[in-house]
Amino acid sequence: MGAIRLPSLAVLRSPSAAARPWTYFSSSSSSSSAATVHSLCSSLRRRSARRASACLSSSSGGVSTQSLAKDEQQRVPPPQPSEGKGAQPNQDGAVTPRSLDFNAWYLDVIAYAELADYGPVRGTMVIRPYGYAIWENIQDYLNVKFKETGHSNMYFPQFIPYSFIEKEASHVEGFSPELALVTIGGGKELEEKLVVRPTSETIVNHMFTQWIHSYRDLPLMINQWANVTRWEMRTKPFIRTLEFLWQEGHTAHGTPEEAEKEALQMIDVYTKFAYEVAAIPVIPGRKSTIETFAGASRTYTIEAMMGDQKALQAGTSHNLGQNFSRAFGTQFTDENGQRQHVWQTSWAISTRFIGGIIMTHGDDAGLMLPPKIAPVQVVIVPIWKTADEKVGVLESVSSIEKALKTAGIKVKVDDSEQRTPGWKYNFWEMKGVPLRIEVGPRDVSKRTVVTSRRDAPGKQGKEFGISMEPSVLVSHVNQRLDDIQASLLQRATTFRDSNIVDVTSYEELKAAIAEGKWARGPWSASDEEELRVKEETGATIRCFPFDQPEGEKTCLMSGQPAAEVAIFARSY
Amino acid sequence: MGAIRLPSLAVLRSPSAAARPWTYFSSSSSSSSAATVHSLCSSLRRRSARRASACLSSSSGGVSTQSLAKDEQQRVPPPQPSEGKGAQPNQDGAVTPRSLDFNAWYLDVIAYAELADYGPVRGTMVIRPYGYAIWENIQDYLNVKFKETGHSNMYFPQFIPYSFIEKEASHVEGFSPELALVTIGGGKELEEKLVVRPTSETIVNHMFTQWIHSYRDLPLMINQWANVTRWEMRTKPFIRTLEFLWQEGHTAHGTPEEAEKEALQMIDVYTKFAYEVAAIPVIPGRKSTIETFAGASRTYTIEAMMGDQKALQAGTSHNLGQNFSRAFGTQFTDENGQRQHVWQTSWAISTRFIGGIIMTHGDDAGLMLPPKIAPVQVVIVPIWKTADEKVGVLESVSSIEKALKTAGIKVKVDDSEQRTPGWKYNFWEMKGVPLRIEVGPRDVSKRTVVTSRRDAPGKQGKEFGISMEPSVLVSHVNQRLDDIQASLLQRATTFRDSNIVDVTSYEELKAAIAEGKWARGPWSASDEEELRVKEETGATIRCFPFDQPEGEKTCLMSGQPAAEVAIFARSY
Repeated sequence: MGAIRLPSLAVLRSPSAAARPWTYFSSSSSSSSAATVHSLCSSLRRRSARRASACLSSSSGGVSTQSLAKDEQQRVPPPQPSEGKGAQPNQDGAVTPRSLDFNAWYLDVIAYAELADYGPVRGTMVIRPYGYAIWENIQDYLNVKFKETGHSNMYFPQFIPYSFIEKEASHVEGFSPELALVTIGGGKELEEKLVVRPTSETIVNHMFTQWIHSYRDLPLMINQWANVTRWEMRTKPFIRTLEFLWQEGHTAHGTPEEAEKEALQMIDVYTKFAYEVAAIPVIPGRKSTIETFAGASRTYTIEAMMGDQKALQAGTSHNLGQNFSRAFGTQFTDENGQRQHVWQTSWAISTRFIGGIIMTHGDDAGLMLPPKIAPVQVVIVPIWKTADEKVGVLESVSSIEKALKTAGIKVKVDDSEQRTPGWKYNFWEMKGVPLRIEVGPRDVSKRTVVTSRRDAPGKQGKEFGISMEPSVLVSHVNQRLDDIQASLLQRATTFRDSNIVDVTSYEELKAAIAEGKWARGPWSASDEEELRVKEETGATIRCFPFDQPEGEKTCLMSGQPAAEVAIFARSY
Repeated sequence: MGAIRLPSLAVLRSPSAAARPWTYFSSSSSSSSAATVHSLCSSLRRRSARRASACLSSSSGGVSTQSLAKDEQQRVPPPQPSEGKGAQPNQDGAVTPRSLDFNAWYLDVIAYAELADYGPVRGTMVIRPYGYAIWENIQDYLNVKFKETGHSNMYFPQFIPYSFIEKEASHVEGFSPELALVTIGGGKELEEKLVVRPTSETIVNHMFTQWIHSYRDLPLMINQWANVTRWEMRTKPFIRTLEFLWQEGHTAHGTPEEAEKEALQMIDVYTKFAYEVAAIPVIPGRKSTIETFAGASRTYTIEAMMGDQKALQAGTSHNLGQNFSRAFGTQFTDENGQRQHVWQTSWAISTRFIGGIIMTHGDDAGLMLPPKIAPVQVVIVPIWKTADEKVGVLESVSSIEKALKTAGIKVKVDDSEQRTPGWKYNFWEMKGVPLRIEVGPRDVSKRTVVTSRRDAPGKQGKEFGISMEPSVLVSHVNQRLDDIQASLLQRATTFRDSNIVDVTSYEELKAAIAEGKWARGPWSASDEEELRVKEETGATIRCFPFDQPEGEKTCLMSGQPAAEVAIFARSY
């Protein structure tokens, strides 16, 4: 029994439909160019922090995004011969160890765990069922929270007249370099180009002007789940794709205080989601002026530390002030009969978050999913040798499956005959399933099972002799899922905290960043100094965290008094 | 008490954010032209029947779609003065009676019930929260059914290389006249134009070739919820818009029998949904060759009769045969080691279905929603005169609300102080809420309520003295909601059946169509004869219904033996 449960030493061979590396990359659409990327960097006021790192790579490092993209491509096994003999696993059959090459590991996990695939157009992504199921879990949680906090879902058209984008000055500056434009419709050249939405503030305000008239129409609080398009030069599955899925909330209020309260409320919803569901110990805070959304007065963010210590902006909430309402004339009549512009917010989380989950929890063996986000929480692997054994084992497995399903646990039975149990162990570990249940003939005779935790390798995570009795087993499984959920958050928190360094001078900051760490220190210097840090270290201000140390502080750069500490890091 | 409950005779005044007629119609993007529309009609093989009617109008009637569209516009009240003093209800304040002008009624209902609004780009639509909530209810039902029948959700990119569309001959013929094309990305002209997906068969097959290798990978059964774009010339909210939301299922199988079974299974899922949830007695059947989807071997459809007796194609399921798999080389190795092309299906239901619900059940007073699809199933209207009464009434209302919510009933309390109870009755009737509960001071003292059915006008639908006791009230409400659900289906079925005429000759067919009815008769004539009927009567074959009369039949047109009856009707 023991022997048959040991992971197979045989080469991990992917089932034919299971493993396809990122082999396809079309050259059919326009390719990027360093010049275009450079123009992306011309604006001081970046619409989002994540773009900053791409700019940095091409402007300071002198590496064109094209070659960077190509570099990423080179990691991927060469295209398969096209005679179509089924998927060929790569040479060693397993994902590249994370410790060996983080980026290669990331792409391998996405391919082998069947999370996504490249689309035919450069930079686009097909989200496969296993990856999409994670997105559905994110949607299910957030949808409830959005409705609890008074928001309604709706849907705006994705085609926006080009003139709309130009109405808010910093908005057009931030977005115009990365727009996809429809110029032909129904076989005819259009009179006005249409923007495929990169975000919807403009069209939302256009409609709000028609729906908002008096203070009684406020607050107006809506959300939409939609696809958005940004012509990104340097793409990476989930993290930065030409088209992605997201939710975008948009609200209008009668006072600046209400708008500020709403923006803070929604970053809090995101923070709770990250901690409680995704087990990601994000740091919530405020963006610097430079990193504020194009058109916002203030941007709040949640920043997550990935397994390579780089930061990921995982969600944002913007206090838009009256910037868009003034540009679009979104006004209401207040209780005194006076016309006023509304105060607005917008906030979003996207499929990028899935990339964050992969890069926070994954390990050398592949994906590791927190139980609350996992499409499959428990995989049951039946083990048998003889036909007689098979009957008894499958019977037990079926009743266990039923008991777990009845208890609301997401369970999958892998009873395929083509693979060894060892192969299955490796496969489902690679897919990140939190808990495995093994059932062999001896277990059946003893009415017990063996459980094995994804987050504890080998024997360490195994428990033997767990009763098959439904109430006992369900309680054990629920307890272990809770344990794993808590353990992943604990582990990520420890990792995060051990990689944040408190700094008091620019020299210390540079040293911390050079080591790949996050640097936290008092900051009250100028935008120019902030850009200098970016140029010289590759790090940007991720946020001024809400959680601030007490006491007087001196700016690490200027030596002047500083009200707050900022966190600097390299980022995705 | 009685008096205070009578609907207010005062003018129905819309609350400020509630009623906005379809005043906005942008001229910012390309306008339609009769020439372009004409080219739409050049193909015998239409990709979908619904397009046929548009072609007919412009080719046989000699009316350009532009003027038709304008004509539709003229129905709408003129644009509001822009001083922004809040929404102005139109002159008489209520929706145009359905009996007076069906199209005007339809547009009024959409505007006043806040289901949707025009987007800034011609032919686009903003789906407002009340309309979107209907879509969410459709999604919730179908998502469960799709998963039960073995399908997984996923997401494909919406940008498709233009060359893909050209690969399947009839597909490109059907779709190329109505494509939106992205030609500029990131500020640069693209080397290959990108199609904004009108449907995803091509990109799905492109990806399937990478995922399907052996018979073990089959069947592959997926679905996506997405937006799609078709450059329609003549648009109508929900029914035909430039961008709409839908689900599209795509499957690949190892045998033609399995594909056929799947296509039939999914039209059956749609049929059950229409009957059981939307209370629409659709007629399922097979499309004629002319009306078959561009690229399909066989198209199944559900055809619904609207309140003006026109047909609406409400959902389709296609057996694609090997048309796409041959065009894209989607092959698998069968159990004998032979390479074969897969057999495929695709099937879709869209936001058009919401238009079908409006036009099936609505009446002169506005929208009427089947309880199973209604965002609000029960509205509670509290009635009081004095402050003392108010306290008692609102206390009772609050506990009633809680009891209904706990029982899973979707309930809304309208306790606003600005409107009379009569105004609220009219308003929520116009919004189609199935059941109203009225609670006044006398009810409170007697611990009873009054209920009023949306589907039975005035006193006819009222029941007095229903106990407030939660178990009694919940049971009463559930019973009435069931009654209303059944009654709407019954009413629509009776209406449908009284408007279908059995015909045995072309003369009879013409007479039936001229009366606005559906004509059902034996048909085995040629495609040319079918087109002649369309030219001469405006009617198309909606389907060869699955439900066929027994006995020998003679084609109404050719006099030859006919295996089946067909249903002819004018359609949306």
